[in-house]
Amino acid sequence: MQHTLIALVENKPGVLNRVASLFRRRNFNIESLNVGQTEKPEISRMTIVMDSDAQDARKVEVNLYKLVNVIDVQDVTNQPAVLRDLALIKVKATPEQRAEIANLVSIFRARIVDVAPDSVIVEITGTEDKIESLLELLRPVGILEMVRTGKVAMMRGSATGVRYAPGANGHNHEEVVTGF
Amino acid sequence: MQHTLIALVENKPGVLNRVASLFRRRNFNIESLNVGQTEKPEISRMTIVMDSDAQDARKVEVNLYKLVNVIDVQDVTNQPAVLRDLALIKVKATPEQRAEIANLVSIFRARIVDVAPDSVIVEITGTEDKIESLLELLRPVGILEMVRTGKVAMMRGSATGVRYAPGANGHNHEEVVTGF
Repeated sequence: MQHTLIALVENKPGVLNRVASLFRRRNFNIESLNVGQTEKPEISRMTIVMDSDAQDARKVEVNLYKLVNVIDVQDVTNQPAVLRDLALIKVKATPEQRAEIANLVSIFRARIVDVAPDSVIVEITGTEDKIESLLELLRPVGILEMVRTGKVAMMRGSATGVRYAPGANGHNHEEVVTGF
Repeated sequence: MQHTLIALVENKPGVLNRVASLFRRRNFNIESLNVGQTEKPEISRMTIVMDSDAQDARKVEVNLYKLVNVIDVQDVTNQPAVLRDLALIKVKATPEQRAEIANLVSIFRARIVDVAPDSVIVEITGTEDKIESLLELLRPVGILEMVRTGKVAMMRGSATGVRYAPGANGHNHEEVVTGF
């Protein structure tokens, strides 16, 4: 089953390395991961999607939390959250096919962001299901290239879900991840 | 200066770890990174944004290319490319403020994707400049939380820019990164 974890980390060299090592040690494959800015320059936010059972996901959550520079971790898998993925899809498109593609794109509230003589680039955001559906329809036309950001997640409602103050949770950051 | 690298990697455990280690060794900080699916299930695509001079970016490019499971690497910094970042922004919004926010959001072709009694979540895609501009305008209203996917890049035009066949370039994958 897919599990989605959000981790707030200090924006320092080596953080990604520690996180990646943790996944490596257990031989977990990350389906998608992204690290980007938050509203605070000193803090980055990771969204990690992994395919695992609940027990393994829980282990990852607990062990991530123990890492140096990790401020908070939350499993949002079963939480009411907005999940978004962005995809850029380069599709074969002769001038005759463009109208058909433009039509599809508008149904999905996607956008054409580049037009070349024989191809277009489509930008779409949404849940994975939505993006998969568009891909399914574009496949017969001819997909030349695709890139996806991987999912980001944000809890619905006003709660921020994650706690921002470094060390606010009073947990000891340990460099050594034990019991993992 | 910001450099944007695209790397095609085999979708196997440990790839992220190798890439992160490489950055760690040189003490480079990654501004944003994402790993997501491509049109081929066995291949993932990383977009890495780093802040460095041209010489360091070149070193990273060459050394990434040498890593096991890395199929191709390209620096798209000065290439004509579509660059896109997705942000989810949770903003304070009393019912009276909602109209003002909705107005801003429509100017930026962004979308409100969740409404709570005293907050909304805004989804925006675009270049970093565009997202920064919206953030600037939303800041006085009150930003509660933000998550960004980090940039993905795709070359404009029909060329796919990156080469897909593993080993097609005849280069030797070496586990040990030398001269780095």
